[in-house]
Amino acid sequence: MPLWTIYHPVDAYTPETKAEIAKTIVDFYPMLPAFYVGVVFHEMPRDRMFVSGKPTDDFVRIAVDHIARQFPEDALAQKWLNHVSASLAAFTSDLGYRWEVHFDETPFKFWRIQGYPAPLPDSEAERKWKADDAASPYDFAA
Amino acid sequence: MPLWTIYHPVDAYTPETKAEIAKTIVDFYPMLPAFYVGVVFHEMPRDRMFVSGKPTDDFVRIAVDHIARQFPEDALAQKWLNHVSASLAAFTSDLGYRWEVHFDETPFKFWRIQGYPAPLPDSEAERKWKADDAASPYDFAA
Amino acid sequence: MPLWTIYHPVDAYTPETKAEIAKTIVDFYPMLPAFYVGVVFHEMPRDRMFVSGKPTDDFVRIAVDHIARQFPEDALAQKWLNHVSASLAAFTSDLGYRWEVHFDETPFKFWRIQGYPAPLPDSEAERKWKADDAASPYDFAA
Repeated sequence: MPLWTIYHPVDAYTPETKAEIAKTIVDFYPMLPAFYVGVVFHEMPRDRMFVSGKPTDDFVRIAVDHIARQFPEDALAQKWLNHVSASLAAFTSDLGYRWEVHFDETPFKFWRIQGYPAPLPDSEAERKWKADDAASPYDFAA
Repeated sequence: MPLWTIYHPVDAYTPETKAEIAKTIVDFYPMLPAFYVGVVFHEMPRDRMFVSGKPTDDFVRIAVDHIARQFPEDALAQKWLNHVSASLAAFTSDLGYRWEVHFDETPFKFWRIQGYPAPLPDSEAERKWKADDAASPYDFAA
Repeated sequence: MPLWTIYHPVDAYTPETKAEIAKTIVDFYPMLPAFYVGVVFHEMPRDRMFVSGKPTDDFVRIAVDHIARQFPEDALAQKWLNHVSASLAAFTSDLGYRWEVHFDETPFKFWRIQGYPAPLPDSEAERKWKADDAASPYDFAA
């Protein structure tokens, strides 16, 4: 987590652009191990994606599942969202696409990586996972 | 938002039927700008969709993400759901498919359209967006 | 519900293995009618799935929507998750894949099967649905 699901028109993005989008998204989370950040792309033909009840090929729809690492203040959340929106414009509105994004929050405790519960934020284990960009055994009962 | 994700058997729906389903869904939300309503279809071959642990080609599974524009009373929510279920029957049980739908609620504040926070319900900006069926700049700090 | 969405590398699983995974998942919910358990598989080419901002073909990402039939104690939830993780290892880490799973909880009341609200847990109607492995009319206003 986070898990980003991106629905986009056919041929909207080359593999190189998708990699650029994925790297941009990783950079939204400088505090997290990079491998926490998953991005999946669904290429949607006109007859599989509808807006206003009409088939569409000019719409990018992004749905994000976040683990609730809450923002201490709502103002910080909005500031972060402003940054995210501005950064994503390069891959959406700047290319002539309409777009929309929403974030859901899911429970920290119902999340497992390689079978492990995620280490607590800012714990020694998380720092190791971040440095290694990989999960490894740790004493999660501690 | 709302975002409707519809998993369906191969060849269950023509593009015309998908458009009809999408229009039916837009009509579930007469108070919202129509372009808020996104619908994506995933055509699922038998070996990619399982119910009761068995491959299936007779099942339509619908998952919906709602922004929490809460119902003032639970009875209204159930009445709305009854209407939704009855309307979807034409595309599911009436065609011989088993089906299931669930709705999740996600935070209003974590949602951006064309980079804008959505206008507040029943605000002047929302009325304009609804009349135009399109997002446009507005003074969201107001 | 539950609805399991499984993103996996191309050719990671044969149809037989997918059926085995789906049966394994059904067994995680011995108290539920088996037909409540839906599993969808998305085969992801390298250039459609990214981890750490890099295209990947060694990652299995599982996202689950649960209806909130809460665990009476958090320790039971963790015990169940340990069992789930250990069972899924056969299809993930044991095959050399990195993997991650998270569960979201969605409202019981916003869920319809064949147009019916789901019977209450351990009700007579639920017992019948479980025995039949199928939904059928019942007096849900009772």
